[in-house]
Amino acid sequence: MSDRLAPGARIGILGGGQLGRMLSVAAARLGFTCHIFDPGPNPPAGQVAARVTTAPYDDSAALESFARSVDVITFEFENIPTSALDTIEAIAPVRPNRRALAVSQDRLSEKTFLNGLGLATAPFAPVEDAATLDAALAQIGTPAILKTRRFGYDGKGQARLEAPGDAGPALAAMNGAPAILEGLVDFEREISVIGARGADGQVACFDPGENVHENGILRTTTLPARISRAQATDAVLIAGRVLNALDYVGVLGVELFVTPAGLLVNEFAPRVHNSGHWTQDGCLIDQFEQHIRAIAGWPLGDGKRHSDIEMINLIGADIARVPELARDPAVALHLYGKAETRPGRKMGHANRRLGPAG
Amino acid sequence: MSDRLAPGARIGILGGGQLGRMLSVAAARLGFTCHIFDPGPNPPAGQVAARVTTAPYDDSAALESFARSVDVITFEFENIPTSALDTIEAIAPVRPNRRALAVSQDRLSEKTFLNGLGLATAPFAPVEDAATLDAALAQIGTPAILKTRRFGYDGKGQARLEAPGDAGPALAAMNGAPAILEGLVDFEREISVIGARGADGQVACFDPGENVHENGILRTTTLPARISRAQATDAVLIAGRVLNALDYVGVLGVELFVTPAGLLVNEFAPRVHNSGHWTQDGCLIDQFEQHIRAIAGWPLGDGKRHSDIEMINLIGADIARVPELARDPAVALHLYGKAETRPGRKMGHANRRLGPAG
Repeated sequence: MSDRLAPGARIGILGGGQLGRMLSVAAARLGFTCHIFDPGPNPPAGQVAARVTTAPYDDSAALESFARSVDVITFEFENIPTSALDTIEAIAPVRPNRRALAVSQDRLSEKTFLNGLGLATAPFAPVEDAATLDAALAQIGTPAILKTRRFGYDGKGQARLEAPGDAGPALAAMNGAPAILEGLVDFEREISVIGARGADGQVACFDPGENVHENGILRTTTLPARISRAQATDAVLIAGRVLNALDYVGVLGVELFVTPAGLLVNEFAPRVHNSGHWTQDGCLIDQFEQHIRAIAGWPLGDGKRHSDIEMINLIGADIARVPELARDPAVALHLYGKAETRPGRKMGHANRRLGPAG
Repeated sequence: MSDRLAPGARIGILGGGQLGRMLSVAAARLGFTCHIFDPGPNPPAGQVAARVTTAPYDDSAALESFARSVDVITFEFENIPTSALDTIEAIAPVRPNRRALAVSQDRLSEKTFLNGLGLATAPFAPVEDAATLDAALAQIGTPAILKTRRFGYDGKGQARLEAPGDAGPALAAMNGAPAILEGLVDFEREISVIGARGADGQVACFDPGENVHENGILRTTTLPARISRAQATDAVLIAGRVLNALDYVGVLGVELFVTPAGLLVNEFAPRVHNSGHWTQDGCLIDQFEQHIRAIAGWPLGDGKRHSDIEMINLIGADIARVPELARDPAVALHLYGKAETRPGRKMGHANRRLGPAG
């Protein structure tokens, strides 16, 4: 895989949601064809991919056939079953590598890894049961957030503790899953950096964006973030440190808290990231093409921003805003082709161009 | 069709080459799904479309089934057989309309139409045989170019006459097809305007680009064109005049000669146009999305340019330049997924960002 894939090569993508869809389009732009593997029927990525396999992640025969049909495999989500990875990795290279997946799949190993690199995080402690939760509360105090160690996203699998008396209900909300108690961080703002590392070790980061979450779901990302030049440099260096430590190949999203004491790492995702969608209209090479370039062994784009952008997620009923947004000459729409609108479901996003990069 | 198509609607595209491919991606971005109709196996557009029908244009059953499966039909090339149009138009709306196709399919009707609007063209005369060619030469003189009235593109079906003595070989090169003799225009440069007209009559044009052709094939388009503000305004007004006169819905490319006596119209194409590929990296809404917006009854983008761009066609063996171009941080590549490289075949293009719009 230090070899460069030539146009015409085939890329396999595990997961056919909006991230797989936008990866598939980026791959086609470079002359690659995509094969999507997804358990659900009619995945959004299937509308713009050369081939789709519909099968569950425990169907070894389907996974083997999928892996044999492609030159490299990547994914749009981090919770891929270990057995599926075992199956495909025996046949085709998987980028980014399994260590990045393993570390980021588990909030405890993720934070331990980050602290081990000398990167600050919120205080945390593992929680298995009532006794370990009591001990964690004694160490961290309240307010705090109890989160499942695995399979949490968009605010799911989380319970907030305002006082030690909330321990019982919070623990019950974990449904017996291993958890982690995190101290609440008093932050000024949330930012994220989308970084990429090539097969040759080259690193390129996009400028930090400023994120606004609502109910645990990203609402907007705005470029530039309202941070100092020193903070922007720190953020990019943190992303580079994570990329190098993991011997990472591909795009990675790092979420950070800006606090009076400096930057804390909230979490990272070993994939293209919602907070990087602004790059589609703010940069010559966007995060999706950057990821494809990395896993294909191509040189990376430089991450330079030509325009300031506000990315607005269209969640659930927000899809009704499309006619209004389509009339705005400063807005580019990116819709995901999902037939059914559900509350909390990401239906698309709008990139509003604020002007030339400031 | 004054109704606005909602996301989820289905768009049919006649022709699955690179233009159909880039239209399909633009349609997906707005939440539409595409059905490609193409006589050849594995068309480039099929790699990024929800559905492909492989059948010849005289297969009425396939055409009917195709037309029934979509909400609106458009095309990537102008030489669609009349019988195919008859079949599909009885079932689904075709945009742009047939008059635009009929006028632009025939160089004689195209130039007659343009002159009828008061727009200047090169001098021309119809040629059927040796006698009419002699008459045409007497009227227009040499040098001149004899062209087939229909089915010419990328310099095919043309013969240059330096002197009246070239009449015989030139006429033979037409293979008996109806032809047109055009006087050679002494131009300073070639420019083109990509214009769009919405279902509601709204018109929006992209800035004129400056074109360089080699052997009848477009090599580069550069923005901005080296023309005066008055010439740019004239060019845009000409495109608007053609769009309105044809009651056009969609994107249209108009090629113009800049001469000391003013602008002459060379020809127009009732479709997205190679000289508009720069818009993918120079504008928020590119020509492909602009066309989809128009035929779907959506508001048009405003055509504003945020970046200066040089578009470089990758023709035949130029595909070998891809590794070098991929290393250039100012270049975005757009490859067409064609398996076979042939001399003269358009394999992709590169957009080089020259800087912010100047």
